Amino acid sequence: MIALDANGADGGPGTVAEGARLSGVEALLFGPASQLGGLHAVDAPTRIGADEEPVRAVRRHPEASIVQAARAVGEGRAEALVSAGSTGPTLAAATLSVKRMRGVHRPALAAMIPVPGGPVLLLDAGASVEVRPERLVQFAHMGAAFMESVLAVERPTVGLLSVGQEAGKGTPEVIEAHGRLSDGPLNFVGNVEGFDLPAAAVRVVVTDGFTGNVALKVMEGSSRTVRNLIGDAVRSGVVSRAGGLLVRGAVRRVRDQLDPERVGGAILLGMRKPVVLAHGSFGPAGIASAVRLARRAVDEDMVGRTAAALEAGGALRSASVGSVAG
Amino acid sequence: MIALDANGADGGPGTVAEGARLSGVEALLFGPASQLGGLHAVDAPTRIGADEEPVRAVRRHPEASIVQAARAVGEGRAEALVSAGSTGPTLAAATLSVKRMRGVHRPALAAMIPVPGGPVLLLDAGASVEVRPERLVQFAHMGAAFMESVLAVERPTVGLLSVGQEAGKGTPEVIEAHGRLSDGPLNFVGNVEGFDLPAAAVRVVVTDGFTGNVALKVMEGSSRTVRNLIGDAVRSGVVSRAGGLLVRGAVRRVRDQLDPERVGGAILLGMRKPVVLAHGSFGPAGIASAVRLARRAVDEDMVGRTAAALEAGGALRSASVGSVAG
Repeated sequence: MIALDANGADGGPGTVAEGARLSGVEALLFGPASQLGGLHAVDAPTRIGADEEPVRAVRRHPEASIVQAARAVGEGRAEALVSAGSTGPTLAAATLSVKRMRGVHRPALAAMIPVPGGPVLLLDAGASVEVRPERLVQFAHMGAAFMESVLAVERPTVGLLSVGQEAGKGTPEVIEAHGRLSDGPLNFVGNVEGFDLPAAAVRVVVTDGFTGNVALKVMEGSSRTVRNLIGDAVRSGVVSRAGGLLVRGAVRRVRDQLDPERVGGAILLGMRKPVVLAHGSFGPAGIASAVRLARRAVDEDMVGRTAAALEAGGALRSASVGSVAG
Repeated sequence: MIALDANGADGGPGTVAEGARLSGVEALLFGPASQLGGLHAVDAPTRIGADEEPVRAVRRHPEASIVQAARAVGEGRAEALVSAGSTGPTLAAATLSVKRMRGVHRPALAAMIPVPGGPVLLLDAGASVEVRPERLVQFAHMGAAFMESVLAVERPTVGLLSVGQEAGKGTPEVIEAHGRLSDGPLNFVGNVEGFDLPAAAVRVVVTDGFTGNVALKVMEGSSRTVRNLIGDAVRSGVVSRAGGLLVRGAVRRVRDQLDPERVGGAILLGMRKPVVLAHGSFGPAGIASAVRLARRAVDEDMVGRTAAALEAGGALRSASVGSVAG
C-alpha cells in the first residue's frame, strides 16, 4: 500500500487521483475526499503550502494531508510515501514520521535527471546544505544502491562533482570524500565536472545539497532557455512557416525526451521507507510513474539493500555516536 | 599596451596574432616570434600546459610566455594581461606578478555568460574553492564595479546564488553574506536560484568558486546537450531533409547567440591590473574581443573604481590584518 498525498500538485487533487488510477498500484490517498472520485482515501482537506516554514507548519497541522500520509507510513499502515507537494513540508513530515535509517547522517534528495544515456541520479539535490565528507560518502552508497535495486543498473558508475577531474581538485571535504570512495567497493570513477552531468558521463553524481540544488536548477533553466531561443528563432520568421512547424516538432521531441514525467521526479534516500517526490507540475502520467517507482522501491527492498550497502562500505555512522544521537 | 600570451589557444599562436591584429588595439605578444607574423612580440616559445601543477610550473619556467607576459604587466611595461591558455597557469602567473589589490581577500574569476538579456556576470567561477561571507561580499562589489565601469551597466542588479529566494535559505556563509549585502549600497535583489542564471534575472550572480565553477559547466553542458538532441532529431529523419536544413539554421543561430566569443570570456577581478581570460577555443574574433575588453578595463579605470567601490561599501579587508598579511 502506497500513501499518496493528493494535495500539492498544480493540477489539484483530481490530477493526483487520476494518476493513482493510471498507475495500477494500490494506493491510499490523503486529500479532500469529495475530489478523489471514490478512490480509497482519507479525508484530509488541509494543505501545507510553500509559504509556511515547513517544520513549524508540519507540527502545527497534524491534520494536513502530507502529515497524515507520512504518519500512515511511519505507523506501518502504508509501505511508502508519494507527494507532489512542496519539497519542504514533504521532507519535514517524512523526517517526523518515516524517520531516518539508523546510521545515516542525513537523508539525501536524489533527483532523476532525464538525459540521453540516463537517467542520471544527482544527490543531494537540496535536502540539506552542509558539506561533510562522511555524508558525501553515504550519498554515494545510497545513490548506487537505489540505482541497483530500483532501476536495475548493475554496478552503476559513481562520480563526485568537483571543479576538476584530478583527485586533488575541490574543497577539502570533496578531496577527503574522494579518498574514502577510492578505497571503497563502489564503481567509483573519481571526480566529475559540471559538463558531465548533462552528458551522463556517470550514472550517479554525488555532491552536497547546496551545489546539487544549484546544479539541478541551472540545468533545468538552461534547457528551457535554449528551447525558448529556438522557438523565438522560429517565431521571428528567420525560418519559413513550414520550416517553423518542423522546428517546433523537433523542439517538442527534445522537451519530451528531457521530460521529468517520464522518470518520476526525485526520491528521498536514507529514510526507513521509500519517499518519492513528484514534481508539482506533473500530470496524471507523472504521478502514476512516481507511484510505480515507490511500489518498485518497496518490492525490491531498496531500504534493506541500502542498509546492507552502507554497512558493506563501512559508511554507517559509528554505533557509539548513533546510539547517543539517534 | 596590452600584454598578450600567444601560446595556449587551441588554434595556436597564429590565431592569437590574427586576433590581436583584428582588435585594432596596441598589444605586445609573448610567444614563438616566428609564428606571430611580424607583430610587436617577445620571443617566448615555452608554453605551460594544463597537465602541470600551475604554481610549481610557473615558478619553474620564468621563460614561459604566460609568466613573461604577466611580468610585463607587473613591471609596468603593459597595462593589462590577456591569455587564452589554461586557467591554472594564468591565475598562478597573475598572482605572482600582477598581484592582488590591497584589501582584497581573494581574486574572483568572473565569467560573462552570453544569455539573452545578459551578459550575466557569474563570479567566482573557480579562482578559489573556499566559502567565506566576507569574500562573497567582496565578489559582489567587484562584480558590480566591473559591470558599471567596463560594460556600462548602471547600478547592475546583484543576486546571491542560493537554494531558495528567502533570506534564510542557504549555507550559514550565504545567509551571513545576504545580511551584509542587504545593508550595503549595491543594487542587491537578494538570493537568486539556479534557474535565474540562464534567465538573466540579475546581471551579477555571486557565489563561491566551487558552486560557480559547477554552475558554469552545467550550463555549458546543458545547452550543448539540448542542441545535440535537436540535431539528432533532424539527422534521424524525424523531420524532412528540407525541414532539417531549417532546423539546423535555427540551432546555429542559437549557438551563435550563446557564443562566448561575442562577449570575451572571463576576467579575473581583484588584481592590481586587468587580467582577461579568453577561452582556449576562441578564434581570432574571440581573441580580439578579449583584447578590446582588457583595453576598455584600462581606459575606464576598472581597478580604481573597484577599489573605490570596495571602500565605499566597507568591504575592504581591515587595515590591521592587511598590513600583516599583505
